[in-house]
Amino acid sequence: MTETEFLAALRTLPLHPGARDLRDDCALLEIGGETLVINHDTMVEDVHFRREADLSDVAWKLVAINLSDLAGKGAEPVGMILGHSLGGNDLEFVKGLREVLAVYDIPLMGGDTVAATGATTFSVTAIGRATCRPVPSRMGAKVGDGIYVTGSLGRAMLGFEGHGEYLPAFDRPVPLLDEGRTLAPVVTAMMDVSDGLLLDVHRMGRASNATMCIDSRAVPVALPARSAECMRWGDDYELLFTFPPGSEPPVPATRIGNVEARSEAPLRLDGKPLIAADGLGYHHG
Amino acid sequence: MTETEFLAALRTLPLHPGARDLRDDCALLEIGGETLVINHDTMVEDVHFRREADLSDVAWKLVAINLSDLAGKGAEPVGMILGHSLGGNDLEFVKGLREVLAVYDIPLMGGDTVAATGATTFSVTAIGRATCRPVPSRMGAKVGDGIYVTGSLGRAMLGFEGHGEYLPAFDRPVPLLDEGRTLAPVVTAMMDVSDGLLLDVHRMGRASNATMCIDSRAVPVALPARSAECMRWGDDYELLFTFPPGSEPPVPATRIGNVEARSEAPLRLDGKPLIAADGLGYHHG
Repeated sequence: MTETEFLAALRTLPLHPGARDLRDDCALLEIGGETLVINHDTMVEDVHFRREADLSDVAWKLVAINLSDLAGKGAEPVGMILGHSLGGNDLEFVKGLREVLAVYDIPLMGGDTVAATGATTFSVTAIGRATCRPVPSRMGAKVGDGIYVTGSLGRAMLGFEGHGEYLPAFDRPVPLLDEGRTLAPVVTAMMDVSDGLLLDVHRMGRASNATMCIDSRAVPVALPARSAECMRWGDDYELLFTFPPGSEPPVPATRIGNVEARSEAPLRLDGKPLIAADGLGYHHG
Repeated sequence: MTETEFLAALRTLPLHPGARDLRDDCALLEIGGETLVINHDTMVEDVHFRREADLSDVAWKLVAINLSDLAGKGAEPVGMILGHSLGGNDLEFVKGLREVLAVYDIPLMGGDTVAATGATTFSVTAIGRATCRPVPSRMGAKVGDGIYVTGSLGRAMLGFEGHGEYLPAFDRPVPLLDEGRTLAPVVTAMMDVSDGLLLDVHRMGRASNATMCIDSRAVPVALPARSAECMRWGDDYELLFTFPPGSEPPVPATRIGNVEARSEAPLRLDGKPLIAADGLGYHHG
């Protein structure tokens, strides 16, 4: 069963209104006049990290990718819950956890520890507090908006391949929490780019019922000779957002296209409609 | 590294006040005048369930054991986040999830799906709302209190061994949510019994800085001939609580002992002090 099929099956279950039909990155929970933003991400040995990886990097990345989802919602981290398989270099894992928790000032709230059998699995549930409401989602892109992305894409890919200057981009991604909080009140749609820029743009177009027109020459990439791969590889954790015309976004970002009325496809790349998401990024499962 | 060593390492990290020093079952989060109760539990193939298990039972049990921790806090379930490894009989898993969510009226809020490599791992973060404050913990047992347990112990053990009438006790445990909510305002300490009665009593004694004196003949067990095992095997998800002298608890429960001033050990079983927790129940890792 693929992830898409499994999600379709889950959508037949009783869903919380804050689940947003399982079509967004985080769950929202309204409580006592506040809105919590909750995200869960898992990293599995041999799938998300190599067996020989330094577990302090894995711990960093696990927390950082969860915080990146909170960043896409403009949320402020409150705490995190850890799911940990014992059996790897557990002290190294705690070392990386200490570093990432200190840098982003987020406390550990609890969790669960299990014995690993074979591949280790680590998960984090990150809990944040919305700093602006409505909380931005993938669904708000409007015709006429500009499409923007922070930073440049493909850096994690080059890090994964061993290019020295890009190693930290793969091993220790940086969640754009400040940028997300600044953008949240003014964007029309926002998400973090985790599975590849084009796939995430496609998802945003589908969720917003719009056609996202991207000019590939405008997309900032780490290695222009491999631009097509840089736009598809994922793991960069930049922010993708749409912004109304007539002014400039309040954080450094590059305009990579425009939102148009929904035509046959949720994404048009250099004029070419892309109906299916195949080949646009990283699919799970 | 054992679970105990790993927890000691985690305690050196920045902890949220609601983590209660990682010495309690759930994390608490005060927000907007409410208190959320958050629990995370994981089930790993070959550790917590057999490879040939019906995944609808696994899904049921995974949610139920999380809800059991909420029951121990008197919390009302709000929603749950799923961490799911694809690759088993995923539709069977969704079927069990549908059943348990319907019975306990708890919606799915979101989650994460990953490809499994080898053993599958499933996790749930359950979120509840405290119905009474302060939220009961393991820490409040007072000298003179009676020690009580609901139901009888060893039923899951007999189910695991294949004794027909006890199969549901192992496969489909029942979280005592109503009982927990009724008890929460009147108990001095409470927790669910997951890792074995004696181990959990020992933990409560240590957390409360008291000596828990248990009369083994008073402990309700499913098979008296194997009483020692019934008190140690775990997976029963009954509620263990202490209650002030002078009246009867408001739910059916059996008095199994008394809280005394802390002597050399947190647990005295039939008069014999048990300082170490070894051999009292199920230890992880």
